[in-house]
Amino acid sequence: MEKKFSYQQLIDFAQAIFIKIGTTEQDAFTAAKALIAADIRGIDSHGVARLSGYVRLWEAKRVNATPQIKIVHETPSTAVVDGDSGLGLVVAPFAMRVALDKAKAVGTGWVSVKGSNHFGIAGYHAMMALPEDMIGIAMTNASAIVAPTFSITRMLGTNPIAVAIPAGKEFPFVADFATTTAANGKLELLQRKNKDTPSGWVQDKDGLPSNNANELKQGGALLPLGSDREHSSHKGYALGSIVDIFSGVLSGANYGPWVPPFPAYIPMPSFMPGDGIGHFFGAMRIDAFRTATEFKAEMDQWIQAFRAAKPIAGQEKVLIPGDPEREMEAIRMQEGIPIVDVVVSDLQQLGQRFGIDFVVN
Amino acid sequence: MEKKFSYQQLIDFAQAIFIKIGTTEQDAFTAAKALIAADIRGIDSHGVARLSGYVRLWEAKRVNATPQIKIVHETPSTAVVDGDSGLGLVVAPFAMRVALDKAKAVGTGWVSVKGSNHFGIAGYHAMMALPEDMIGIAMTNASAIVAPTFSITRMLGTNPIAVAIPAGKEFPFVADFATTTAANGKLELLQRKNKDTPSGWVQDKDGLPSNNANELKQGGALLPLGSDREHSSHKGYALGSIVDIFSGVLSGANYGPWVPPFPAYIPMPSFMPGDGIGHFFGAMRIDAFRTATEFKAEMDQWIQAFRAAKPIAGQEKVLIPGDPEREMEAIRMQEGIPIVDVVVSDLQQLGQRFGIDFVVN
Repeated sequence: MEKKFSYQQLIDFAQAIFIKIGTTEQDAFTAAKALIAADIRGIDSHGVARLSGYVRLWEAKRVNATPQIKIVHETPSTAVVDGDSGLGLVVAPFAMRVALDKAKAVGTGWVSVKGSNHFGIAGYHAMMALPEDMIGIAMTNASAIVAPTFSITRMLGTNPIAVAIPAGKEFPFVADFATTTAANGKLELLQRKNKDTPSGWVQDKDGLPSNNANELKQGGALLPLGSDREHSSHKGYALGSIVDIFSGVLSGANYGPWVPPFPAYIPMPSFMPGDGIGHFFGAMRIDAFRTATEFKAEMDQWIQAFRAAKPIAGQEKVLIPGDPEREMEAIRMQEGIPIVDVVVSDLQQLGQRFGIDFVVN
Repeated sequence: MEKKFSYQQLIDFAQAIFIKIGTTEQDAFTAAKALIAADIRGIDSHGVARLSGYVRLWEAKRVNATPQIKIVHETPSTAVVDGDSGLGLVVAPFAMRVALDKAKAVGTGWVSVKGSNHFGIAGYHAMMALPEDMIGIAMTNASAIVAPTFSITRMLGTNPIAVAIPAGKEFPFVADFATTTAANGKLELLQRKNKDTPSGWVQDKDGLPSNNANELKQGGALLPLGSDREHSSHKGYALGSIVDIFSGVLSGANYGPWVPPFPAYIPMPSFMPGDGIGHFFGAMRIDAFRTATEFKAEMDQWIQAFRAAKPIAGQEKVLIPGDPEREMEAIRMQEGIPIVDVVVSDLQQLGQRFGIDFVVN
């Protein structure tokens, strides 16, 4: 059903493939690290399983392997970055670097990005802030598969938000979540197992409640965080909208129902108000507010208090955002990254095509 | 059951009361406007009904009527404001003004606040950005009545987030929501009517599901947005945590389970790591990213597209965040603000005590 691969092997393979489609060695390494960060952290839907998808976007001329990524507008604390249709996996680290540099200079940096593509997991980019004693924020819009409260029309992507906050002796706080009740990756898992979804994850093409994990293929939609009006889906809808506006409207990328899809076989929207996919990044220097030493000591106390919160009988202990992904990373660095057979053969085919060995032990 | 009052009468009365407890005339007006903004926008739980609560905080020496509100740390794009235990209704507009001024200078402004009290509705402060063609952000922590996923311990407040975004011909986008499934005000409404809550709003003192609107008085807790793990309550918990950290830990205010309660009769937490309640404000100049004209035209298109999304048969049309509150404001400006009798007599007693007439027609 699945085989295990080392982190280094996946990095090397992804880098080799990116070089084959024409990226520089440096960009290929940047992209590989961002991509495999998903696998190592346990978000299998966003990692190496998508490598051939990125290649298909390049074949469809929707990814430019040699982009001129540049700042097209800026102030001391802001910038708009044009990704020139580069891999989001390369554009996003560039833009986050701009945010970090601006924060170094004036306390915070905020960068809205247009002309990009899918950037992997938001948390990876937000975490770039941690070694510099900054808070990192990353978000992105995506093609529309989410219906706003009261509607049957798909208007928003799963539009994730990531926020990474440094701590002292404790591990950092790293939240990274889709603004929907369930991420699309969870549906894919259920589809593979031929199982139903819990109620409140999806609706059918008429907006009626459904438990069909394949509903999106039949005109249905994912539901915003909150699931229904009675459980405040209008809040999830508002959150997804804020991500869309900060990423798409502020930068001049596409937004709402007009964001280009990831699968290259899906035609582009007939109307496109902007340029590519949009992202939004933020960096806040801790010592722009108080000393990093003080802040980190308080964060340690915050984290320890939450860890000590009394669990409900029979349930897990209270987790700090980022715990599951960090624990997964430790395990997978040690034991390897499991990849399901269908993805293994896809990667082998990809390797054969480009003359790169994908060795299966 | 209720009587109606004009916006102006409530403003005048609240201002007169604030002056009686010793604030300057200007601060009293600032506070009255922030307070009555809740009533006019239909968020009755946060408006004039709380006026006597603020007075009790002053009596308990937890509100300083003549604070020296000041910036205690700053960079070009950030500041920490010390509210000196002033009314949150006065401290928050001061801090938001600092954020707006910094945004004017360097593109964005971000202000974390300590030593404050409850600030009314978050949306009012975020909306200060709109006339200046800026995006406004406001959030606050509050005393703990929310249990994190898997826990029975109250660790977070309802910790609201507001984001106000200008549009062109369309009305602005104004999201303002608690990071819980249900705001506490909704529980109070059900309590008054002796009704049960829907499932997924509260849990009992053992963390078991409950429909009792009085559960919080018996050791129960509100649930984070998402309600339960299967519906991603860990995302609501993460959001509430981010608000708490940005507002409390970044500023040096109290945080987590140690935030002081609004009702003056509830004793202060025995341990308090910081100073008062914390808020966090942000302002982003639109033209720090692209021209305001371009942005507003795209926002109009965004809003029109979402309004045109097809409704589910038998359900309401799709709303844009801020619609219900703006429509309520138009009605109440015209027809007056209804106040339930129990609040009316509370205000009459308050007026008598300070020699201010609260005229009921």
